Amino acid sequence: MSKPLILVTNDDGITAPGIRHLIEFAKEIGEVIVVAPDSPQSGMGHAITIDSTLHLEKLTIDPKAPEQQEYSCSGTPADCVKIALQEILSRKPDLCISGINHGSNASINVIYSGTMSAAIEAGIEGIPAIGFSLCDFSWDANFNAAKPFIQKIIREALSHGIPKGVVLNVNIPKTDAPKGIKIARQAKGNWKEKFDKRTSPMGKDYYWLTGVFDLQDKGEDTDMHAIEQGYIAVVPTQFDLTAHHAIQHLNSWELHEK
Amino acid sequence: MSKPLILVTNDDGITAPGIRHLIEFAKEIGEVIVVAPDSPQSGMGHAITIDSTLHLEKLTIDPKAPEQQEYSCSGTPADCVKIALQEILSRKPDLCISGINHGSNASINVIYSGTMSAAIEAGIEGIPAIGFSLCDFSWDANFNAAKPFIQKIIREALSHGIPKGVVLNVNIPKTDAPKGIKIARQAKGNWKEKFDKRTSPMGKDYYWLTGVFDLQDKGEDTDMHAIEQGYIAVVPTQFDLTAHHAIQHLNSWELHEK
Repeated sequence: MSKPLILVTNDDGITAPGIRHLIEFAKEIGEVIVVAPDSPQSGMGHAITIDSTLHLEKLTIDPKAPEQQEYSCSGTPADCVKIALQEILSRKPDLCISGINHGSNASINVIYSGTMSAAIEAGIEGIPAIGFSLCDFSWDANFNAAKPFIQKIIREALSHGIPKGVVLNVNIPKTDAPKGIKIARQAKGNWKEKFDKRTSPMGKDYYWLTGVFDLQDKGEDTDMHAIEQGYIAVVPTQFDLTAHHAIQHLNSWELHEK
Repeated sequence: MSKPLILVTNDDGITAPGIRHLIEFAKEIGEVIVVAPDSPQSGMGHAITIDSTLHLEKLTIDPKAPEQQEYSCSGTPADCVKIALQEILSRKPDLCISGINHGSNASINVIYSGTMSAAIEAGIEGIPAIGFSLCDFSWDANFNAAKPFIQKIIREALSHGIPKGVVLNVNIPKTDAPKGIKIARQAKGNWKEKFDKRTSPMGKDYYWLTGVFDLQDKGEDTDMHAIEQGYIAVVPTQFDLTAHHAIQHLNSWELHEK
């Protein structure tokens, strides 16, 4: 049997330590092709490039692995997946994995996440897909501690498939020894923004966006709780955003008569 | 009783005809404050500006309404909502409305939509929010045909509230006489991409993203069906992306043992 074909992408850019680790982990399981942004794209949400051109470049990042097929793309993570499927891959991949992101994409962060937007884009195209994020922003974070868990999740996804319309959002705690894996739901929470207002040398005001995360959900079945307890959280994530439970409420509004 | 406070934003930029119409419609209902991007942001998904600075400018777009409070922002639609809440508004608005987008945000387009990302950002912050889109890309589209319906939806949202965790995605058909309003679910569909490959004068390849929409869902309860039949589609849309129905499946995977 031929090896599974795995598309690897991310949002921190093709040279980020997180994707370099993910490529190594995935190469032990399948044939890996990398199509990732040529520069960091964090916070890009599900952006796509519709008013500008895209550039692709075939390159070798790791001189010890010149046979590794890698392409950098000038676009967003979602663009990378689209162009990989249309212009690079000769067949539909068996799996798309995105990351390992430098920083958490748990709770509401999934909404702002370029890492997850790549996985969601693959899911929309009918490809099983997983986003991996490590809750550690530092460039020299310990990605290896999660290696056996990441490989286990990849192998299980390849063997069981992922339900249609669902992609996995995997968040890894900052620890040298994750305790295990928990299937979880997205915790309710949001960022309390604070804008840091400054004045330029030319006397013009400008702002930096900062904020602190406000968790409003102590549920033991949440991703935040699992991570807090030292477990890797796996949240099945969907892109049908319909709030079916709200349809009844809306049908009680006076919208139907002229 | 004081008038409701309505925050208006969009993704086509503060001077787009769609937002100018929405401001006029909303001013007949409440006190309107506008904070919108200084340039088009279509396809930005839920992007936020975390690696760059933001600029705000108070300005008058309509010389006939110098009393109208308006600000342009250098950021994305989600940035506009965040900075409006933190730096501009003196109290939490009663409603945030985004649009009217020039083009459809029905079906999977909700995922790529800057218009909806602004509404979702407001929803995350606990503010009732609605995104409006007209299925007509042209700059001189007929926005007035939907005026009574848009005002009805705004009034009902103000009087009933919108369930927590839900924002409304309203898509208006291209017609001079919408037949009415239908509550709907997000139709399943996706874009079949085609990259238009070209060569620059310097001999370098580049790509334009193009595509055709592929509807895979003929349900009569979908947004696409309502629009096709000449109705305005209202889809309750959520930002808890957990696919609860998939948790059981994932719990059958071999993830829990060491």
